[in-house]
Amino acid sequence: MRILGVDPGTATMGYGLIESTAGRLSALTYGAWRTGADSPMEQRLLALFTEMEACLGLYRPEEVAVEELFWGRNTSTAITVGQARGVVLLAAARQGLPVYEYTPLQVKQAVVGYGRADKRQVQFMIRALLALPEAPKPDDTADALAVAVCHAHSRRPARA
Amino acid sequence: MRILGVDPGTATMGYGLIESTAGRLSALTYGAWRTGADSPMEQRLLALFTEMEACLGLYRPEEVAVEELFWGRNTSTAITVGQARGVVLLAAARQGLPVYEYTPLQVKQAVVGYGRADKRQVQFMIRALLALPEAPKPDDTADALAVAVCHAHSRRPARA
Repeated sequence: MRILGVDPGTATMGYGLIESTAGRLSALTYGAWRTGADSPMEQRLLALFTEMEACLGLYRPEEVAVEELFWGRNTSTAITVGQARGVVLLAAARQGLPVYEYTPLQVKQAVVGYGRADKRQVQFMIRALLALPEAPKPDDTADALAVAVCHAHSRRPARA
Repeated sequence: MRILGVDPGTATMGYGLIESTAGRLSALTYGAWRTGADSPMEQRLLALFTEMEACLGLYRPEEVAVEELFWGRNTSTAITVGQARGVVLLAAARQGLPVYEYTPLQVKQAVVGYGRADKRQVQFMIRALLALPEAPKPDDTADALAVAVCHAHSRRPARA
């Protein structure tokens, strides 16, 4: 099972593609797509959409996982992140891929086993679980891998 | 000059396509695209994107206008509307169309001449300005036509 995890954002969009085979996880590719603040928003969204479509075409994941947004943030951020998120959901839907959402709590619980884990603990565990040479950076990339791992763990019982 | 005005939303997305010729405005098509709350969000966004792409292909507007969102609303709404908005901006960008944004105040000012006008006044003026047989419904459609009219008015001085 190939899973693409995405941490949506317009300036930096983290992505992490993992493979789950018989309960073993490995990372196929991960990083962050970036857009410049000096471009019009519609062009930035188009750039992100193009990157994501290319990634889906190249790696053919079967499912997409994204983190549910923090409701507590201010509405201005929420709209911007929402726009980036809309593009991610759309790119997935255009390939017929289902999208799964997890709260930050669920992600931390699944990755670290503790819902209040901090960013360092998440990065540490992601590196260990996926046997990465170093901690994935930026945070957006680590978060994208984390939600993909969370999805891989969460879907196991349903298949058993 | 053909302008597509859009009022983004996931349940109901208002659209209004107007033509501005030598300062005279007319409506070419208007209405609302709807999606069912029982479908997954990515499918709803795909449906809206498909409708909008079809509209752009059929009517070939040269510019797209959308209303800036109310920052005062709650973050949950902001994310949902943001997602719908992301899809609108993306569809425009894929056709190489520039997107213009106006605040509700600017729209009311341009359409009614009074920034605190209520929805009825906006509908009344939209109907009059575009010589429509009746007030456009739902509100989302009226709002989409209003932002298109606002853009038509706003861009005139720049061309003079």
